Amino acid sequence: MKKLLNRVRKCNSLLCVGLDSETSKLPKKFLKTKHPQYEFNKWIIDETNKFVCAYKPNVAFYESRGDRGIRELKMTMEYLKRQHNNIFTICDAKRGDVGNTSQNYAEAIFDWLGFDAVTLNPYLGAEALEPFLNRKDKVSIILCRTSNPGAGEFQDLRTSRGKVWERIAWNVVTSWDKDGNCMLVIGATYPKELKRARAIAKNMWFLVPGIGAQGGSIKEAMKAGATKEGGLIINSARNIIFEKTPGDAARRLKEEINSFYPLPGS
Amino acid sequence: MKKLLNRVRKCNSLLCVGLDSETSKLPKKFLKTKHPQYEFNKWIIDETNKFVCAYKPNVAFYESRGDRGIRELKMTMEYLKRQHNNIFTICDAKRGDVGNTSQNYAEAIFDWLGFDAVTLNPYLGAEALEPFLNRKDKVSIILCRTSNPGAGEFQDLRTSRGKVWERIAWNVVTSWDKDGNCMLVIGATYPKELKRARAIAKNMWFLVPGIGAQGGSIKEAMKAGATKEGGLIINSARNIIFEKTPGDAARRLKEEINSFYPLPGS
Repeated sequence: MKKLLNRVRKCNSLLCVGLDSETSKLPKKFLKTKHPQYEFNKWIIDETNKFVCAYKPNVAFYESRGDRGIRELKMTMEYLKRQHNNIFTICDAKRGDVGNTSQNYAEAIFDWLGFDAVTLNPYLGAEALEPFLNRKDKVSIILCRTSNPGAGEFQDLRTSRGKVWERIAWNVVTSWDKDGNCMLVIGATYPKELKRARAIAKNMWFLVPGIGAQGGSIKEAMKAGATKEGGLIINSARNIIFEKTPGDAARRLKEEINSFYPLPGS
Repeated sequence: MKKLLNRVRKCNSLLCVGLDSETSKLPKKFLKTKHPQYEFNKWIIDETNKFVCAYKPNVAFYESRGDRGIRELKMTMEYLKRQHNNIFTICDAKRGDVGNTSQNYAEAIFDWLGFDAVTLNPYLGAEALEPFLNRKDKVSIILCRTSNPGAGEFQDLRTSRGKVWERIAWNVVTSWDKDGNCMLVIGATYPKELKRARAIAKNMWFLVPGIGAQGGSIKEAMKAGATKEGGLIINSARNIIFEKTPGDAARRLKEEINSFYPLPGS
């Protein structure tokens, strides 16, 4: 978490760029290279690094190319480590399995790929995710209220004490986060829920997907969830990486975020 | 589903072997080869294929070796397709992401790796999993009541109409399974819940992990959940693949399962 906080302060930005580098959407010039996803990511990183606190590749876009994609994700991580070691890295993998298996996922993501953080699915409970949660040097980002239109099917079921997603937020805050290494995922597409989550988890950092293509508003997200220290990592993928000038798109988004929330030092 | 049913009848077995080929547990002779996980899997498949209806590799054990592991999982799938194309294959990946991303996971698992079925996490709802559910040629196996000790943390929360996991079973049966291509995961470690799941999902097939190392009993699982056609795929991994004679272990387990349930034709 220190790495994230330092980076947020240093670059004065809450913007995270989603490296969802779907091969079919890459500009042609990259498709001709030996490592198209890696070369594309390198270009995006070179253009946008000044404006971001974090990068977040979603592994699905690499796994769909098999071992070649995974190899290029690893090359991307090595490039980041070499060139921009102070930028926070999030593996958007939404993993969640029994303990023995979670241990292997943790090794794949934290050790082999070298990420600082991972997104996790809470459905199996804290006991199953211990191999992630016990890594005090890494950050576990727990799915809570997701950004998709059908998120409410189970997340909004009412229990005796709040909805299912509120119980998850509550349990993460009160018992999972014993080492101060947890965050929550709350979609920008649901600002009311974001406000409620902030009431439950007063000082916790949230990863906020869903602005832009999915329809979430930066203004409403910042109003509902920002804290004194920032408190939100605002993710944007398609609206930055598939623009002609991704650097300009990232700068504009960073400025828009900050216009609703003058960060310390800005 | 037809492929599964045909195989169950043909080999008269409900046994699934979990190819959880954790490198640190492989016999030394395989570690010396160029493709240790592939060579090990090949040996396990050669020894056990007569006794099984399905194979289920958990991808975590391959991802922890990076692109090499993924490559060897693919080689394993190619071997199965070549040698035993009638055996049902399940990718234990527990994926669940927003629609656009699920599409990429579906391509990775169904098309690139070539699996017949995948395990999925329902927390994001049916809308997010449509790219899997819409594949009528493939089977979606939805996590419902998992086998781990801490499974109840959220799965057992009471809602106005049953527990969370019961609502998931109910929704899958009544609306997700419109093409008859869904199954549920119910752990053998919870026979009471298995019985209850059978009451909700009368004819649906369940994937049942948790016997052996995790403590679930075959007898109780069969009593609680078997149907006329079988209805259960009983998974075993460590207790077969890390035995000295995996073929004997698989045959014994198949016979034990059948002793509680004479399948048609046995």
